[in-house]
Amino acid sequence: MKTGDFNVGNREISDAVIRRLPRYYRFLGELKDSGTERISSKELSEIMNVTASQIRQDLNNFGGFGQQGYGYNVELLYKEIGRILGLTKMHNLILIGAGNLGQALAGYVNFEKRGFIMRGIFDINDKLFGEYIRNIPIMSINQMEQFIKENNIDMAVIAIPKSAAVEVAKKLVDCNIKAIWNFSHIDLDVPAGVVVENVHLSESLMRLSYAMNTEKYGKEK
Amino acid sequence: MKTGDFNVGNREISDAVIRRLPRYYRFLGELKDSGTERISSKELSEIMNVTASQIRQDLNNFGGFGQQGYGYNVELLYKEIGRILGLTKMHNLILIGAGNLGQALAGYVNFEKRGFIMRGIFDINDKLFGEYIRNIPIMSINQMEQFIKENNIDMAVIAIPKSAAVEVAKKLVDCNIKAIWNFSHIDLDVPAGVVVENVHLSESLMRLSYAMNTEKYGKEK
Repeated sequence: MKTGDFNVGNREISDAVIRRLPRYYRFLGELKDSGTERISSKELSEIMNVTASQIRQDLNNFGGFGQQGYGYNVELLYKEIGRILGLTKMHNLILIGAGNLGQALAGYVNFEKRGFIMRGIFDINDKLFGEYIRNIPIMSINQMEQFIKENNIDMAVIAIPKSAAVEVAKKLVDCNIKAIWNFSHIDLDVPAGVVVENVHLSESLMRLSYAMNTEKYGKEK
Repeated sequence: MKTGDFNVGNREISDAVIRRLPRYYRFLGELKDSGTERISSKELSEIMNVTASQIRQDLNNFGGFGQQGYGYNVELLYKEIGRILGLTKMHNLILIGAGNLGQALAGYVNFEKRGFIMRGIFDINDKLFGEYIRNIPIMSINQMEQFIKENNIDMAVIAIPKSAAVEVAKKLVDCNIKAIWNFSHIDLDVPAGVVVENVHLSESLMRLSYAMNTEKYGKEK
């Protein structure tokens, strides 16, 4: 399942709404941390730079936690969106690829705060075996399959050149990994029941290039 | 301009089509490199795992380069999409933040092949000043404004903690930077004429978490 509609309980939620949910979660977290107890869709829309009607529509998908004349209870909404996003569960991750990008990803302590615990890092460079990034051991890729079985791993991060990514993804699927966060610049072909989230950086850079160039065209008119 | 519709010449192209263009570009580049001269929308749809009608609709936005019974000329389409994405021009970039993520980004030679040339890296850590990543010098953030003026810089990559990102973005805008690739976990408020492309990694991870959890729900039913 890579794109299309998702399902929460009995509801069908569009991909576009799902794409926006983490952003709601981030803003609500900041409001909560700053001591805000409730907020109207209008106030939230001003902070988030989207329309109030968009916010009401989006949040209605999840039963709507707002009350007329009261607004949204920030903590309640934050918790509920966290639950929907699966952040109330703990996930055990492994990382494949201890290059610069892998090291950056392994260094993010914020992921752990959200319940994503990195248990092991795998690479083919034997100079790295036995090293640690933030207490996380770097091991040989040959040990990966056994490690997954013994450590209840359910998610994997792929940060290796695309030439090796397909084979590694296949191994991960064989080991019953259910979710792959893919930073390799290739689309992975996975069976039903396995989810992939791609972060294709060069495609993101091209979108920026496009936007800049069309912005220029706009100005020249 | 952060979201919404873009404009190519006189055409309005939806954000969804734009999001897909770099992926077309990637697949067409691979086809070109493998010596494929032409391809039908049906063949392309099988490789890219989208419908042929989607492909025809998307590419029609740009005048449609396909011919009935012939298919698409791979090289022509590749070049044209490259032109639309602004990849025929050269862009001078700077990077702010020489941490692990910044180092990973500075190390991507592929960006250069697309015309994005990184000219300088800026940080606050004075131990790094005078060092290089792939011939790219690391300098003090205090030198950034002068460097931008003297080196015809038009794009900036922000890979620093969010606490500092807003102030840096403001400086970049003051220096007439027109495009910001933002890896800091905060939304930047920029004036019209400046484009921002966000890569919020923790939001991407949350979408993966959501997909995995709903996939599980789906199975339990």
